[in-house]
Amino acid sequence: MKYFNRVGLVTCLLLCTGSTFAQAISADIKKTAAELRDAAMKDTIAYDIVESLTMEVGPRSAGSAGDSASVKWAIAKLNALGFERVHADPVEVPHWDRGTLEVRITAPYAQPLVATSLGGSAGTPHEGIEAPVVRVESIQELRALTSKQLEGRIAYIDHVMERARDGAGYGVSSRIRACGHVVAAGRGALATVIRSAGTSTHRVAHTGSMRVNGVSGTIPAVALSNADADILTYAIRSDKPVSLRLHSTARDLPMAMSANVVGEVRGSGKLADEIVILGAHLDSWDLGTGAIDDGTGVAIVMTAAKLIMDSGSKPRRTIRVVLYANEEFGLSGAKSYAAHHQDTLARHVVGLEADFGDGAVWRFSSQVAENALDIVDELHTLLEPIGIERGDNKASGGADLTPMRKAGMPVLGLTQDGTRYFDYHHTADDTLDKVVRADLNQNVAAYVTAAYVAANMERDFGRLAVDTSEYGCSAEFDK
Amino acid sequence: MKYFNRVGLVTCLLLCTGSTFAQAISADIKKTAAELRDAAMKDTIAYDIVESLTMEVGPRSAGSAGDSASVKWAIAKLNALGFERVHADPVEVPHWDRGTLEVRITAPYAQPLVATSLGGSAGTPHEGIEAPVVRVESIQELRALTSKQLEGRIAYIDHVMERARDGAGYGVSSRIRACGHVVAAGRGALATVIRSAGTSTHRVAHTGSMRVNGVSGTIPAVALSNADADILTYAIRSDKPVSLRLHSTARDLPMAMSANVVGEVRGSGKLADEIVILGAHLDSWDLGTGAIDDGTGVAIVMTAAKLIMDSGSKPRRTIRVVLYANEEFGLSGAKSYAAHHQDTLARHVVGLEADFGDGAVWRFSSQVAENALDIVDELHTLLEPIGIERGDNKASGGADLTPMRKAGMPVLGLTQDGTRYFDYHHTADDTLDKVVRADLNQNVAAYVTAAYVAANMERDFGRLAVDTSEYGCSAEFDK
Repeated sequence: MKYFNRVGLVTCLLLCTGSTFAQAISADIKKTAAELRDAAMKDTIAYDIVESLTMEVGPRSAGSAGDSASVKWAIAKLNALGFERVHADPVEVPHWDRGTLEVRITAPYAQPLVATSLGGSAGTPHEGIEAPVVRVESIQELRALTSKQLEGRIAYIDHVMERARDGAGYGVSSRIRACGHVVAAGRGALATVIRSAGTSTHRVAHTGSMRVNGVSGTIPAVALSNADADILTYAIRSDKPVSLRLHSTARDLPMAMSANVVGEVRGSGKLADEIVILGAHLDSWDLGTGAIDDGTGVAIVMTAAKLIMDSGSKPRRTIRVVLYANEEFGLSGAKSYAAHHQDTLARHVVGLEADFGDGAVWRFSSQVAENALDIVDELHTLLEPIGIERGDNKASGGADLTPMRKAGMPVLGLTQDGTRYFDYHHTADDTLDKVVRADLNQNVAAYVTAAYVAANMERDFGRLAVDTSEYGCSAEFDK
Repeated sequence: MKYFNRVGLVTCLLLCTGSTFAQAISADIKKTAAELRDAAMKDTIAYDIVESLTMEVGPRSAGSAGDSASVKWAIAKLNALGFERVHADPVEVPHWDRGTLEVRITAPYAQPLVATSLGGSAGTPHEGIEAPVVRVESIQELRALTSKQLEGRIAYIDHVMERARDGAGYGVSSRIRACGHVVAAGRGALATVIRSAGTSTHRVAHTGSMRVNGVSGTIPAVALSNADADILTYAIRSDKPVSLRLHSTARDLPMAMSANVVGEVRGSGKLADEIVILGAHLDSWDLGTGAIDDGTGVAIVMTAAKLIMDSGSKPRRTIRVVLYANEEFGLSGAKSYAAHHQDTLARHVVGLEADFGDGAVWRFSSQVAENALDIVDELHTLLEPIGIERGDNKASGGADLTPMRKAGMPVLGLTQDGTRYFDYHHTADDTLDKVVRADLNQNVAAYVTAAYVAANMERDFGRLAVDTSEYGCSAEFDK
């Protein structure tokens, strides 16, 4: 406020909204934000955090021993870094065990295939399943098949995921993963086999949840690596009858306890009870060590908050780092957080989430009240120097922020380059060596800039309309 | 002979040996060789052959069902391509089954590791092995340890294989794989764990034989993927005691039958009984589908011979394609071939082998009689236009040619670019999608050029001195 005289301020309130002429963010804030940004670009502790999490905990799927170990790790790490009010909020999580899996072509060209059970898959009967294969390339084609065509058979959905900077190809591919088995089971198929929802050209299959709205599958559902999908497709193109054999001991276990782990950089002054969420998820799939999904996210938000903590003065608002439980297998932590913070919902002024690997941020988008877009525009000028373009106001904010966003909390979206992300995502290949240190630091730079501004600026981002839409596998959804 | 008058020939016999002035290869032969070379560079059937072998047979380790299937495949393919005297020469092969393997760090940071048993590894006792880990970086360091330091422990040899165009890094790494367990077992170690003899940065471990001179290991020996070796090394650098747990059901099975599969392009005229061997191995390790090791070799030599067959006139010498049984696990086919062809040894005028993946040939070397080096020089002028430089006269010729070379048969070496080869070698990642079609065609071009010249030229490459040296794991060997 100190940079406007009263007349200027009034004039601006009348005229300047949305204009770059307005100063939605004070020069002081901008200066410090730019300093934090530039320091982060040079070097941060983010890589050390990913290293520590992946090497000392490793895989940490919901309900597993690694999950518990990660909660302890996070509490210790947040305390060691000097965060305040560090605590674990208990969250009940589903617990699924993949057991063992064998997939092999038995005819016409017998050979084993590299595959992985999808999260939530049922196991096979003890003796396994051996059945003819029916190949389709989309959910729509699968829907067009009759029960007569699928009954007693294995449905193979052979969709090649498209590589894209914004990860756009994952939309269709993850829907196939989540909904294919529902359609196939409804028509009497014994199992579903998909080409992995991923772009790896290595012999690692991509897992991921097949549950929709908390309901597990009724039939086994597995993903083949891209190379193995090529083998199966080659066999089918031979025009000879193709049979697959599956044996899986995957099963649901009783619900287990995990926790959202929280640490704060407390605000000071009259806005101290307002909250800027920096979110990432602590769990990972079990195949890799969760380096890019979501070790890098954990490291980015921890490091961004730590840099603000160490900047010499307290932020006005509280920066709350939330490391969510079980994002991968049903957003347990996100839902629990939203349920338990209904009372303080209005004090959550904005959320930022990091859950797209280590790729450099290339776009800054938002979902904020229309009359706060001038702030976003001005904030963007601080991000432009590190290669970030301006996006729209339709940011989702990330999976773990979804329940809060739908309840009205604005979100900022720092879109990371996802070109390589789906080479590793949900595979055994998600390990530390894939993390590019310079890109990780650029992420920290972007997050610290946005978080510092959000925590210190005079105005806020307003509120969003409540969104009551539901995700599902209805026919409409796949149109 | 027709290009020299009698005086010129006598003069040349006196003066020209080794000089580029001599015409060791006639202009006719050079012209046809160059045409074959240029046609191969444009397109060949080599890729289709690798596709067929990897997709219709897949893994084919010695003694396995895939091994038998590959013999049938090779006979059918050679017949379909029009080869003469197609037959299978039975070869007895060792049969080892890797069973299942579990490796996990139990302390200080519990997590599972991606590993693979080395070929010939013993299994663990039923209850598995759990023991402290002792890390070294070389065989020399391992030798320096006492029984007191290794007894009851697991030896971890953490050598990072160097990436090189000529594959030089594999020398040390494969020696560690073959000899590490011998040294460790001799000092009472319970098991050996090595960082993979390979350069993959993906979560696939590199297998390969640990047998030396046909003797299997007495203790379990496994290789970690590079990412997993990083995890274990990180744990060891924590300065806390590190323990590993291993469980393996690997075991030797009774010897099995396989075969060398042979097909010929018969020569005509007085040199028809002389033989130019084009060799590759039909077997593969069990983890991948054997695309680059050695499906590409099979395709290169089959295609080179096929192009000569289709060139319109019969070669003077017989071109014999030999697809060797069990190269990977003891050179069974190579030894059998040499033993069964002692009578015709002298008629094997030269051998060429393709067993280094799909990388383009960049160097042409040889091991021929000194007085035949002028032919090699002149042959090189035909290879230079496709990017091949001149090497020395110390070529090994390849593993499967070794017994014949040691008995005196000259060899030509078309050295392929191995920069990427050890990213896939002996891993599950050795699949068709890794094959680069243009590079494969360049290989065919190089092989067809050399084979055509060798089969048609007037002179031959002389004979080599008999070599009686032996491979072993003695201390001298590792100096």
